[in-house]
Amino acid sequence: MKKRILTGDTPTGKLHIGHYVGTLKNRVALQDEYEEFIILADTHALSTLSGNPRVIQGHTLSVLLANLAVGLDPEKVHFFAESLIPEIYEMAAIFSMYVSHNRALRNPTVKDEITMKGLGDRFSLGFVNYPIFQAADILCVKADLVPVGKDQEAHIEQTRELAREMNRIAGSEVFPEPEGLIGEIGKLVGTDGNPKMGKSLGNTIYLGATTDEIKEKVMSMYTDPNRIHASDPGKVEGNPVFIYLDAFKTPEDEEQIAQFKQAYTQGHVGDVEVKTYLVGVLDRFMAPIRERMEKYNNEKLLLEILHAGSKTTQGEAQKNLEEVKKIIGFVY
Amino acid sequence: MKKRILTGDTPTGKLHIGHYVGTLKNRVALQDEYEEFIILADTHALSTLSGNPRVIQGHTLSVLLANLAVGLDPEKVHFFAESLIPEIYEMAAIFSMYVSHNRALRNPTVKDEITMKGLGDRFSLGFVNYPIFQAADILCVKADLVPVGKDQEAHIEQTRELAREMNRIAGSEVFPEPEGLIGEIGKLVGTDGNPKMGKSLGNTIYLGATTDEIKEKVMSMYTDPNRIHASDPGKVEGNPVFIYLDAFKTPEDEEQIAQFKQAYTQGHVGDVEVKTYLVGVLDRFMAPIRERMEKYNNEKLLLEILHAGSKTTQGEAQKNLEEVKKIIGFVY
Repeated sequence: MKKRILTGDTPTGKLHIGHYVGTLKNRVALQDEYEEFIILADTHALSTLSGNPRVIQGHTLSVLLANLAVGLDPEKVHFFAESLIPEIYEMAAIFSMYVSHNRALRNPTVKDEITMKGLGDRFSLGFVNYPIFQAADILCVKADLVPVGKDQEAHIEQTRELAREMNRIAGSEVFPEPEGLIGEIGKLVGTDGNPKMGKSLGNTIYLGATTDEIKEKVMSMYTDPNRIHASDPGKVEGNPVFIYLDAFKTPEDEEQIAQFKQAYTQGHVGDVEVKTYLVGVLDRFMAPIRERMEKYNNEKLLLEILHAGSKTTQGEAQKNLEEVKKIIGFVY
Repeated sequence: MKKRILTGDTPTGKLHIGHYVGTLKNRVALQDEYEEFIILADTHALSTLSGNPRVIQGHTLSVLLANLAVGLDPEKVHFFAESLIPEIYEMAAIFSMYVSHNRALRNPTVKDEITMKGLGDRFSLGFVNYPIFQAADILCVKADLVPVGKDQEAHIEQTRELAREMNRIAGSEVFPEPEGLIGEIGKLVGTDGNPKMGKSLGNTIYLGATTDEIKEKVMSMYTDPNRIHASDPGKVEGNPVFIYLDAFKTPEDEEQIAQFKQAYTQGHVGDVEVKTYLVGVLDRFMAPIRERMEKYNNEKLLLEILHAGSKTTQGEAQKNLEEVKKIIGFVY
């Protein structure tokens, strides 16, 4: 039996090339070796979009579409909407009785997000609950592995604590303690060199972008701010154009990119030439994504995929919730 | 159509005469005029019994039995276990995104309970969530009225805020704002005069107590601590024996009790005589309760009643959760 992975996205907007480098690429690479459950955490999306909740469902479908477009196979991968698995909420409600309020607030990821998103003291109770929901997301399918960035390790630790607590009460190992899968999880700078990439910053390229959209973004990319003329020696390191070239190149691009790097540091090639090459690299990367996006861009089909994956997930969640209820003796 | 009442108990132990005076009496009196939904909040019981969860289900059945024994009619009243209505958790999860963490902590009832139960900083996240769960308990059946003690008014206010918030997003009045029904909600002192009555204090009489148990408890009741001899003038006010006489008397007892009161203040009647009379009053009060307790004390029958009530409740909860999901646009 394949080991299980639980991973997913919070559907708050369209996915972009930063998401690809950060997680999607990894998901695609692992879909044969593991049984993947991919959550579209629509309820989590409420923690930032509660004022405008009706946009979330659209985001959920758009995020699902992007996952399919990058090459995840709905025949292999189980996509599910969090709100379609009520067992998650019930499990989380029980779990929340086994986590002290203090412990929940000590979660460094929660603290960081409060600072990062500038939430001050206006964050919701649901926001504080979220790591417990994530524990339920993970344990409801008894996932073995959870691909995470450094900033999510604290949630895995919380999940492991809950698995241990349930096992302790049960007196046997009912829940495996999931492991973080800290793989090649990259982070892509924005087209403006900003370490954060996002819609509001206007410094990203969406998955499925047209050739023109790619061209427009790339030609206005930041490069080396100290280089004024093409004949000035330029810096490759930290230069967004070269970072992107390295992130999206294929083996066939290796040689050309190596030449560009050398020429750039010697002042023998201009920004425009390198950028034009990057447009080609990104366009070749995007072509199959655009193709699959066209193939799957059909609400009925997307809903079918979502319902099928949710059904499979719910079957697992029902079994595992029953186990939790047996552990605490709620078996009416 | 009858107005709906939502009320209930957290099953953490056997119910006693303090519960009768506090709430059960009122429930019985209102069961014809209103449609009553009575929650057995087993999940809430985890907030104090998480370390020993397997006792809760037994408490749930014992609390149900006591409710039936005092005269609630399972043909009229819908008894349900919180853990049998998953819609409550889902609704609560959504609601928790609409309550700021600060607002949740500002709940004076939560603050009081932390002090009262001596929880220090060890209370669970579920404990902080609980008012939101109660809001879901209430709104999942669109209850109009919630009988509450003073100490629970804050939870109703939280529920009203959530109803308003849902209505605001919906642009129409989907949820009625429930009202507190602050009726004749009494509070009975312990047999030792302690304003708090409870198992751990050993100062109560359980519903269904035998004549001998009643006798034992009553004969050792506190009276007027300054009265040493039967001929000393005694105090009626604040005297637990007289408080109990007033709480459990029938019209036929009125005259005798009035005589006792006068004689007591004049030093013309001894504690033993008054207590012996109270034993009779309480025994007559308890006789039909014992009888019904015998009738219903059958696990299969209790589970049938619980499942029937839970099914009715779940039907309502499903409809109302669908409304919440429609409001936030989660309609896949």
